[in-house]
This record gives sequence, structure tokens and C-alpha cells, in this order.
Amino acid sequence: MKRKSYSHGGNWREAVKRYGISPNKILDFSANINPWTSSLGIEEIVKDNLKDIYHYPDPQYTQLIKQISQYLGVDRENILAGNGSTELIYLAARAILPKRALIFAPTFFEYERALKTSGGEPKFLFLKESQEFSVNIRTIIEETKDVQALFICNPNNPTPTFFPKDELLEIVKITEERKIAFILDESYLDFKYPGETLVKEAQKADHLFVLRSFTKFFAIAGLRLGYGVGGRQLIERMAGLKEPWTVNCLAQAAGIYLLRNEGEIKMIREAVNKESEFLFGELSQIVGLRPYPPEANFILVKIETGLSSSKLWEDLARKGIFIRDCSNFTGLKDQFFRVAVRKREENLRLIDILRGVVYEG
Amino acid sequence: MKRKSYSHGGNWREAVKRYGISPNKILDFSANINPWTSSLGIEEIVKDNLKDIYHYPDPQYTQLIKQISQYLGVDRENILAGNGSTELIYLAARAILPKRALIFAPTFFEYERALKTSGGEPKFLFLKESQEFSVNIRTIIEETKDVQALFICNPNNPTPTFFPKDELLEIVKITEERKIAFILDESYLDFKYPGETLVKEAQKADHLFVLRSFTKFFAIAGLRLGYGVGGRQLIERMAGLKEPWTVNCLAQAAGIYLLRNEGEIKMIREAVNKESEFLFGELSQIVGLRPYPPEANFILVKIETGLSSSKLWEDLARKGIFIRDCSNFTGLKDQFFRVAVRKREENLRLIDILRGVVYEG
Repeated sequence: MKRKSYSHGGNWREAVKRYGISPNKILDFSANINPWTSSLGIEEIVKDNLKDIYHYPDPQYTQLIKQISQYLGVDRENILAGNGSTELIYLAARAILPKRALIFAPTFFEYERALKTSGGEPKFLFLKESQEFSVNIRTIIEETKDVQALFICNPNNPTPTFFPKDELLEIVKITEERKIAFILDESYLDFKYPGETLVKEAQKADHLFVLRSFTKFFAIAGLRLGYGVGGRQLIERMAGLKEPWTVNCLAQAAGIYLLRNEGEIKMIREAVNKESEFLFGELSQIVGLRPYPPEANFILVKIETGLSSSKLWEDLARKGIFIRDCSNFTGLKDQFFRVAVRKREENLRLIDILRGVVYEG
Repeated sequence: MKRKSYSHGGNWREAVKRYGISPNKILDFSANINPWTSSLGIEEIVKDNLKDIYHYPDPQYTQLIKQISQYLGVDRENILAGNGSTELIYLAARAILPKRALIFAPTFFEYERALKTSGGEPKFLFLKESQEFSVNIRTIIEETKDVQALFICNPNNPTPTFFPKDELLEIVKITEERKIAFILDESYLDFKYPGETLVKEAQKADHLFVLRSFTKFFAIAGLRLGYGVGGRQLIERMAGLKEPWTVNCLAQAAGIYLLRNEGEIKMIREAVNKESEFLFGELSQIVGLRPYPPEANFILVKIETGLSSSKLWEDLARKGIFIRDCSNFTGLKDQFFRVAVRKREENLRLIDILRGVVYEG
């Protein structure tokens, strides 16, 4: 099946139609959406706020920003809300306008695209399979010498490349000295490493912008909500370019509500991590597959049988199971796929069908 | 009360708090939102599609674009969906990058801001009170000689400046010859002049981009949905710069559903226009106010008593009634305000309180 190169996880609608699969019967492992959020009652909140649809959203996002400020312990003036963190990636690129920016390969595609649509060019830092996709921060620092901006997703996606806070602080220090903008995407940080966030550092540093998302942990990909934290000067520059009303009223209501559930958030985190370990263990036992230990709610897997990831994608899609074929990530060959961690029964079904397809293929 | 200069209608939250008004008791005439949409059952549609919030929105907006295509009778390839028409105003500015663009004064503020954030400068064409805010198309054509783009809102907002289709076609022809991009905002056209749309012309002309909104007629300002129609080449250029997932899943569901209600749309249109005439008549009878005949669901009013629009705004806000003080529109002095047309009982309450305040003031 031909798919456009500009394709992300979660985009299985065309295949569902093509293969005649009932949308109720699909299992989507392609988008890194957390299935443990039903206890949060998000749908009830949306229903309770339905009358808001007839009014413009608050363009200052006052209540939402206040709640985020309390949740993070950072000042309101250092926070911007966005239509997913994606809006803020593009906004950061437009505010900073780097000619060249250092971007990992592979990583989330939108950094590269945001950069290019703002007239910049990516300089790729290729994460090497031979090094388990890890990279020394000395290498990163060395490679920033001729760029004006640096994008890091921590933990990364689709590779589980992860940097602890003390290593990132070294990068923060050196990029500040070199006047390089540092965009740090923490969209996946809350699953395993909530304590490693740099939001408090970001409010003090004008060259640092930390992105946070509601899409992955809170699973409200369809509502569109993310936010960013940065120094006052940077935030003001971005606010000056930001389009009004991009965060709809229901996303605002959901965001305000969700950040009040700290106890629930902790329980969800534990459930995801427990199941991540389980799924990793099961994948490890399929001969011909090599999963990488997860750092968030997804697992990168290498196919070592000669079967291509696009063929595997198609074989599974015909059975209603959608994985993320990673062949369109810059820096990954047609041998890698990514699966989101879902609940036990669904993970077992994935393992079962995957085993069959890999052994047959 | 001090308000930021970057302030639109519908933004009354701060005042509600300041004056201690119950949000249930306010009457908002400041945003041009149509109150006749309850028969459409929009809330039910949102409820029926709540499960979509856990998935990324279709980034191609396939079903929505298909429905818009059928509704307008234009090809899908000529349509872009947006987070309100506002996203598409900014996107057009980024795709066209005009150094100078002709913009009416007064008009919707976002044309000017979109232009400036893309590095362009506005050339204002001031609509004159002495000419009832109308302008000859010869003047417009003359003024486009040294610009690369032209923004027209038809009918305009907040003035009821309106051009019939044949006059606009002349502008289309001349801007095409001169290679000037023409952004025509039809956000308010559906109320009185649905037949005057240029969407079919837009799909043939690469320099023309026609904006359409769900915010005003369908009153879903809080969900964020708009679209645009243009020539293939222009649409492709804009699609190449467009950020993904900006239209949330519930806005898509609502849009698909709403355009299927042609009979209902016609009835709503008649109700709005009948009430517009009524409200215009009532306003005309208040000594000291001079309303301009409406071309959509709002009425521009001049205060001729010496009372300033900001003072009137404050006097009414304290009573829970919000009008649009027009003093922050480029080209309007502190003597104009705008009211949206609401239902009879609410309009009568407005008239009653307005009469009292104007006579006292």
C-alpha cells in the first residue's frame, strides 16, 4: 500500500477503508496514545462544558495557564498554550528563525518541517544503531558549533534515547553561552521521568523552550492541547507572533480539569510502566524481533528476519492491527517499527498475531 | 476599565470577574455569533463523536473536505480546512509574503496582524464616514497599484460595506492581470447574500483565496472551524506550509454534520435577517444613536451624543451587557460600537438599557 511520506502514527483511516475493516475492530498501536485514562472522566468534562462551543475561546487562556502554572510551579508569564505542542514547535521556529538547527535523526518529523517552513535547514545528528541509538552529550555540544538552534525530544521518539537532567543542564549552559536556542520536547517525559523536567530552568533562561503535551499521557490527541515554558523574553516574542484562539474551548476545559488529578496521574504512570515492561518482555521472546527497552509508552523494534517494516505493516493492517512503520523516519531503514503500549489483552493479541506474521514472513 | 488594544469581541471574561457579574446573566452582543442554531443539534453531534478525542484528527480532513466540496460544488483539491478562518488568514500571508497589502480601515484586525507577522506592511484604504463607509471599486483598483496583496472582507466588519459579485469580479480580473493576491473573506456572506460567493471563481484563479467560516453563521466559535477555497497552485503552496492537526476531531464532526442541513440553514438565514431589520429599526428610534443598515448579523452604530464608546461599553458592561466598543479599530474614532443581532427578547433588553444609558449619559 502506497502511503504519503508525510505520514504519522494514528493515520489509519485510509487503510481501514481500503481493506474493508470495521473501524470498531481495529487495534491502533501506531499512535503513542495512553489507554489508561478512562478513569479520569474526560468525556464527562467535555460534556459539562458543551455550552462553551458557542463562544470564542478565551484568547488569553487565563484559567488554563493558571492551572498549568500551579501544576508546574512556574509563573504564568512563562507559559504558552498551543494547539498540541505542534503549534508551539512551528511558533518557536518562526520566533527564532535559525538558519541551521541541529536535529536528531530519527526523531519526530515536525521539527524538521517547522524549521524548513521558516526558511531554515536541518543539520542531522544521526543516532547510530551500533550505539543503541544513544549519543554522548559531548558529541551534541560539538555539533552545535555551527547552528543557531537545537531540538531534542527527551525521551526521543521513536528511539528511546534519553538524557538525565544533569546532562541536559550541561547542554543548557553551553547553548546559553553560545547563544543557541534550545527547544526541548518533553512530550514523553511524564511516563517514566516526571522529576527530570526542565520547566523551572526554562523560566529562567531566555534561550530555552520546553514543550509539554496533553496528547500522549492524557490521550486527548483529538482535542489538541499542549503547552510550552520559556524565559520571559522568548515567550513574549512568541506571543507576539501567536495566532489567536488556536486552543478550542473543550481542550481548555479538559486541560484545566486533568491537571487537578495528581493522584490519578501517578497511578496511570505506574500502570503504563508496568505494562511497558511486560510488552517489552513478550516482544523479546519473538525470534527475529529485537525490541529496545522503553523509556516511555512505546517500544521501538528491529526486524531481524529480512521482512521489511512496510510489508509487516501491511500484513498486520489487513488484520486490523496498526503499527508505526518507521521507514519514513530520517535515519531509519525499512527494518524498524514502533508500537505503543496498550492494555494487557490488546498487547497479548498484538504479540500473538505478530509472532504468526514474523514466523510466516 | 483598561483593555488591551489587541481585543476582539466575545472577550468579556475579565469584565465579568471585575464587576462581579454572574456569567449566566450576561448578554453578549460583542461577538457576531448567531443565536438561531439550537435547532441544528450541534451539541448532540459533539456528544456522539466524543470517542474521537482519543485519536489524532485525520490530518487530511478527508470527510470534512468531501462534505464542503459537495456543499459548494468545488473540487476537493481546491479546499483547505482551518482552525477557524483565522488560521488560513495567517497561512495565506505566509504563503504569499506580500511586502505591502491593501487593507480596509476599519476591518477585522487579523489581516493586518497576519501581514505584519509575515514581515509585510499594511497600506490602509480608509472607509469614510462621509461616504457611509462605502468605497468605489475604481478607488480600490487604483490603490492596488503598489501592493502585492489585497484583503477584502465582504460584507465588511464592523462597517456594512458590501460589494456585489459583478463588482468583485472586476477586481478579480484586474488583480490577476497585475499579479496581486486577492484574499476575499466571506465569513459574513451567508447571512444575506449566499448567492454572491466567489468560491467557484476561486477554484479557477491562482491569485484568489476565498475564506469561509463556521464561527459566525453556525455559531461554533469555541470549536474552531473555517475553510478556504483557492486555485490549485495556491492551495498546494499553502498546504506545504500548513501545520498538521489544527482542526480538532469535534470541529470536523460538527462541520460534516452542519453542511448537510440546507433546509435548516435557509430558515436560520431568514430568522436572522428579519430580526436584523427589527433591531435596526429599534436602534434608529433612539435619539442620539445612528445605526448603519445591516448587511449581516451585526449592526454598526454611531453615538452622536458626545458619550464615548468606551464609556458606553463600561456603563453597559456593569449591567451585564457586552457590546463591541469599536475604538480600537484602525480608522474608527471613540464614537462607534457594534452589536450582534440576538433573539427578540434579548434585543428588546438591549434597546431598553441602551436607551436609558444614552439618555442619562
